[in-house]
Amino acid sequence: MPETVEIGLGRSARRGYHLDELALLPTRRTRGAEVVSTSWQIDAHAFEIPLVVAPSDAVVSPSTAVEIERLGGLAVLDGEGLWTRYDDAAEQLAALDGTTAGLQKIYGQAVSPDLLRKRIGQLRDAGVRVAVRLSPQHTVELAPHVLAEGVDLLVIQGTVISAEHVAAKDASSGELNLKTFIASLDVPVLVGGCGDYQTALHLMRTGAAGVIVGYGAHRGSTTHLALGIDVPMATAIVDAAAARRDYLDETGGRYVHLIAYGDMATGGDIAKALACGADAVMLGQALATAVEAPGQGRYWDATAAHPRVPRSTVFSGVAVDLRVSLEEVLHGPASDASGEQNLFGSVRRAMGKCGYSSLKEFQRAGLILHSGRG
Amino acid sequence: MPETVEIGLGRSARRGYHLDELALLPTRRTRGAEVVSTSWQIDAHAFEIPLVVAPSDAVVSPSTAVEIERLGGLAVLDGEGLWTRYDDAAEQLAALDGTTAGLQKIYGQAVSPDLLRKRIGQLRDAGVRVAVRLSPQHTVELAPHVLAEGVDLLVIQGTVISAEHVAAKDASSGELNLKTFIASLDVPVLVGGCGDYQTALHLMRTGAAGVIVGYGAHRGSTTHLALGIDVPMATAIVDAAAARRDYLDETGGRYVHLIAYGDMATGGDIAKALACGADAVMLGQALATAVEAPGQGRYWDATAAHPRVPRSTVFSGVAVDLRVSLEEVLHGPASDASGEQNLFGSVRRAMGKCGYSSLKEFQRAGLILHSGRG
Amino acid sequence: MPETVEIGLGRSARRGYHLDELALLPTRRTRGAEVVSTSWQIDAHAFEIPLVVAPSDAVVSPSTAVEIERLGGLAVLDGEGLWTRYDDAAEQLAALDGTTAGLQKIYGQAVSPDLLRKRIGQLRDAGVRVAVRLSPQHTVELAPHVLAEGVDLLVIQGTVISAEHVAAKDASSGELNLKTFIASLDVPVLVGGCGDYQTALHLMRTGAAGVIVGYGAHRGSTTHLALGIDVPMATAIVDAAAARRDYLDETGGRYVHLIAYGDMATGGDIAKALACGADAVMLGQALATAVEAPGQGRYWDATAAHPRVPRSTVFSGVAVDLRVSLEEVLHGPASDASGEQNLFGSVRRAMGKCGYSSLKEFQRAGLILHSGRG
Amino acid sequence: MPETVEIGLGRSARRGYHLDELALLPTRRTRGAEVVSTSWQIDAHAFEIPLVVAPSDAVVSPSTAVEIERLGGLAVLDGEGLWTRYDDAAEQLAALDGTTAGLQKIYGQAVSPDLLRKRIGQLRDAGVRVAVRLSPQHTVELAPHVLAEGVDLLVIQGTVISAEHVAAKDASSGELNLKTFIASLDVPVLVGGCGDYQTALHLMRTGAAGVIVGYGAHRGSTTHLALGIDVPMATAIVDAAAARRDYLDETGGRYVHLIAYGDMATGGDIAKALACGADAVMLGQALATAVEAPGQGRYWDATAAHPRVPRSTVFSGVAVDLRVSLEEVLHGPASDASGEQNLFGSVRRAMGKCGYSSLKEFQRAGLILHSGRG
Repeated sequence: MPETVEIGLGRSARRGYHLDELALLPTRRTRGAEVVSTSWQIDAHAFEIPLVVAPSDAVVSPSTAVEIERLGGLAVLDGEGLWTRYDDAAEQLAALDGTTAGLQKIYGQAVSPDLLRKRIGQLRDAGVRVAVRLSPQHTVELAPHVLAEGVDLLVIQGTVISAEHVAAKDASSGELNLKTFIASLDVPVLVGGCGDYQTALHLMRTGAAGVIVGYGAHRGSTTHLALGIDVPMATAIVDAAAARRDYLDETGGRYVHLIAYGDMATGGDIAKALACGADAVMLGQALATAVEAPGQGRYWDATAAHPRVPRSTVFSGVAVDLRVSLEEVLHGPASDASGEQNLFGSVRRAMGKCGYSSLKEFQRAGLILHSGRG
Repeated sequence: MPETVEIGLGRSARRGYHLDELALLPTRRTRGAEVVSTSWQIDAHAFEIPLVVAPSDAVVSPSTAVEIERLGGLAVLDGEGLWTRYDDAAEQLAALDGTTAGLQKIYGQAVSPDLLRKRIGQLRDAGVRVAVRLSPQHTVELAPHVLAEGVDLLVIQGTVISAEHVAAKDASSGELNLKTFIASLDVPVLVGGCGDYQTALHLMRTGAAGVIVGYGAHRGSTTHLALGIDVPMATAIVDAAAARRDYLDETGGRYVHLIAYGDMATGGDIAKALACGADAVMLGQALATAVEAPGQGRYWDATAAHPRVPRSTVFSGVAVDLRVSLEEVLHGPASDASGEQNLFGSVRRAMGKCGYSSLKEFQRAGLILHSGRG
Repeated sequence: MPETVEIGLGRSARRGYHLDELALLPTRRTRGAEVVSTSWQIDAHAFEIPLVVAPSDAVVSPSTAVEIERLGGLAVLDGEGLWTRYDDAAEQLAALDGTTAGLQKIYGQAVSPDLLRKRIGQLRDAGVRVAVRLSPQHTVELAPHVLAEGVDLLVIQGTVISAEHVAAKDASSGELNLKTFIASLDVPVLVGGCGDYQTALHLMRTGAAGVIVGYGAHRGSTTHLALGIDVPMATAIVDAAAARRDYLDETGGRYVHLIAYGDMATGGDIAKALACGADAVMLGQALATAVEAPGQGRYWDATAAHPRVPRSTVFSGVAVDLRVSLEEVLHGPASDASGEQNLFGSVRRAMGKCGYSSLKEFQRAGLILHSGRG
Repeated sequence: MPETVEIGLGRSARRGYHLDELALLPTRRTRGAEVVSTSWQIDAHAFEIPLVVAPSDAVVSPSTAVEIERLGGLAVLDGEGLWTRYDDAAEQLAALDGTTAGLQKIYGQAVSPDLLRKRIGQLRDAGVRVAVRLSPQHTVELAPHVLAEGVDLLVIQGTVISAEHVAAKDASSGELNLKTFIASLDVPVLVGGCGDYQTALHLMRTGAAGVIVGYGAHRGSTTHLALGIDVPMATAIVDAAAARRDYLDETGGRYVHLIAYGDMATGGDIAKALACGADAVMLGQALATAVEAPGQGRYWDATAAHPRVPRSTVFSGVAVDLRVSLEEVLHGPASDASGEQNLFGSVRRAMGKCGYSSLKEFQRAGLILHSGRG
């Protein structure tokens, strides 16, 4: 039975846990990192590491997507980001002043379907697997362009998404019906975010190949302040894993992948998300300090530029001389002890110390709940 | 059964939860903000947003009351504030030095019944709905003036109020009996604050139209230090909602509104208070940074000027160039990501992401209890 | 049943609560402060406020004892402090440099029984009730001098005391047996500190008039760091109150007073200690900022000068212009909102808002356990 | 039953407690420090204090090992530290720049078996009991040299160790089998770290004389960040004590010692670890500020120099004039109130205040779980 608390007379709340309240608990044999695999496969696509890079203009550009592919992960280009709004996106990025108002202004430019197609073409020409993110609000309008150009994975992603959205517009003229839309596609779809069992199950039933758990909470996120919505990631992943299990049973074998997104800054955070049941992680801010990151050390996500309710400050820049290569961030070697470098080398060692050799087995790792460290 | 803890041998304490320990948990369909309503009606009075502005001289003056009405909320003028003590209240406000001693001195001047009537007249002339707050200590003396001049809502409010107050004075000569007093009035009354089921129920039985839950804890509050009294708002609102439900049953249908007052600085805080069961919120400090606020960026409440036990420091001023209009505070668009601008636009989006279209329905929203974020 | 937690396989720990985790919960009528009494009587001695001032050289000198008596409380002179080690104690105090080493040096001087008798004489001559503290280690040696000179209350106090102490010395030659010792006296004795039911009960059985709960934890205390001993005061007071109740039954009516000592800096802290079941409070640091305090704004207790394991830093001085009179600290009016002035005026208001008119009734006040405020 | 929490649907986590969440709870007689013994005996070796000094180059050198022996404890030389990598280790230590990269570079030099033997010889010549630590990875290669030279205790220690390690290498050619290896030795072995009952029991079954609980978390540790592994020491020690009890029963009397390692900076921390069930403590950082410490006030452990995943920053140096002698750190007298001096004098007083006269009895001390102090 999930833990609930009566917060007052006749009203209960579910208890939720964050990743930083948990630790891995090695309780069995240990393994050397060299006999541990972090390989991940979704649909026809195999990856060396279970990494999906978040559709943030601060970390994914057409050129970083190539490097991310080379390093074993999957980059998601924001189909509604600067690269599809501006022909000179790189110049626009270089000119960003780091304020919310500055972001609101630059993202005020309309998305160009032509540019969207052009960027997809660039990625395809570079020989990488192409993944593009659209918001639920603009999927009906923009997806045809994306699909026409051809992508390997489509990502439909908002802060909170549901399989049944109610809007003012007439549903027949442009409203997204996730279930019928996804059913009509040949390309695998990642869809989210969500934070509970019910929504996760409903999203699985749309036919999605993967469900994104969480909305990408990072150090600059203010969604919890502005909206009162927060996703304790450990509980959310565990609940979505229960939905995955039930859906597997319900369908007699369809396995939907869980992509954890939020509150992961270090190798340990990633390891704990995987141990809670995630198949892969979506990382944004964790990669922002890489030398190659288009944000030049700054980080923001799509909510930062919302015209009426911005929900992310721009994470202030990291000095150039403290930044290391994307390869060092992902695969090391680490030259500091922050836990923020060699992220997947760290994951491999965490898996080994817990005695697991594959990601799927690692989802059974022992967990201990504790008061955390300041 | 409410959660109780045995804190020592033979002595139990109720467990109480603050709003910042909760998050909204979207678990169903989502709705666009444009198909969500925040309208609120109490007695004959309808409001676009469920906002009662606290009777603090830092945020309510005769002129801001007009602007608040225009923006869809209700302003409460402090009947015992500077506007009813000084003919030149604006000059007195401008000269405030921000110290406790300075406040004690300026509030040492007696309230003038003539000025009180004059201020009410000014508000009425401006065409706004008139709400005036009196303290329980001075209601017997000052209410006749207020009622003679005519108000739309009377607010009888102290830090902690009860339906049965015991004082040294002979009860026959000037002591307030809330039940007989309110029963004698035609005008709807808001009464509070309170923090538990029993007191809320007793206050409902006085015939009040609304009960204020909490005492307005804000960043400068020291009531918890000076008196050891604190109101974990989530639990207090939920308990008062249980009293509202029981009183509704007891009376065969009289619905008393709950006005949550305290610990709300952002749109998310407000959304959570409403989700716990509040019908409306009373905001003070959250509006203090508005350009129009008479406190010029500073905030204090009536307890700050108490002659013997002051219980609120003066919240230090916000630089003028960081302040935005009251309209932007309430309705946006927000130009920063603090969650402290576009408060009710944020509430509307929170309601939509949880799938509710009206405030009353939103009182059933899913809640998750978690460790909060520093 | 007291709350216990299994911290590991086969090992349980009691759960303890600090005062700052609790708040008073007004749930009934309210009372004006003018109809609330804070009077306290122990043995033949009546006091206007339930205040015992801690035997710290930083707050009690022969002259402050006079002022404390005038203000309604009881001062305890440290029989092993500077006043009984130095003829020129005032000069020694003025020359203190605020370091641990400095304290260790000045307290290295032996206690003079003659000076001890002289100081008692001074107090008696000033017409105040005389209370002197001795450590359990030196009671056998020094008590005869104290008793010969005549005191109104004897305080036997260490960090942790027990009714059965085992020492290397031959018990027949100088070891304190609390039970036989106290039984032999005519003067009422306060004895402590203690932190649990069992020790409290044993100390009551020595015949003491009062038991001190806690060891006086203050902002500079490091007993928890050095010894791993800490006393969650709320739980400790509640447990001692259970012992008081059981001892009352066991003796057919002997009421032993509980003096809470530790973690009380504000009026609210004191109110909560009283509501947990304390009959009076022992305050030290809370009075250190008074203009009259011999420590000149600094605070330390007897553990600060321990020659081998000092367990209190010297709380750094408060600037003279921020200090107010002892009368303002105890009875107000407060000129700031810190909750650290008008301590007992605040207590009276807290009692009134909870609806109680006497300290004994107030021990039944409602309590709420919450996460506290940073 | 150990406390478990359902963190989400169908997934439980054990609840773990840190030492700083506990306090000792004196509940019985008290004892003078002079009638308390801290003596500890493991195998044939008796020690005045239950101290094993961690194999960190920052605190153990051939010369400090002599001083530690003189002061009643046991020093463990890191068999893979600078002293076995460099002939001029002292010069290398003096030249350290305190960065992770600097450590990685200096520890990049290979261990010399000849130097290893030379250092052991130096220790033996100095007349101290010799303890040397090897990592599980290099035990097969280096242990023959250590054993040939002769040691009193062998320490096989990594962050997390198991009785069954799986590596890529062919197990027949160099892989450590703890059980057969330890069984083949005459010298007593300490082995660890571990953090749970199962691993502790398995390590006991290898025939080890002592099991190390924890991985030595200190102020600069980042293992929890990099790997997501953390050991709440109170729970880990209690669980290992349960394993010790069960193993004692299983073997009809073989008592394996528990050496607690991590989160101990003060005398109180040590006392609590012993009260949880540890037979002795392994201290590193706590001794780093001693004047004699080779790290000159800085502290790091073996994980700090890991070539790919460093997991400890170099704790920044303490100014020379604030450092005291190792004797003062261990036996006092303390000249400040930090709790970080006179560590074992503090332990003795803590034992006395709880009424225990030996370490074994003290393992039954009362514990209270509380919210800790900032």
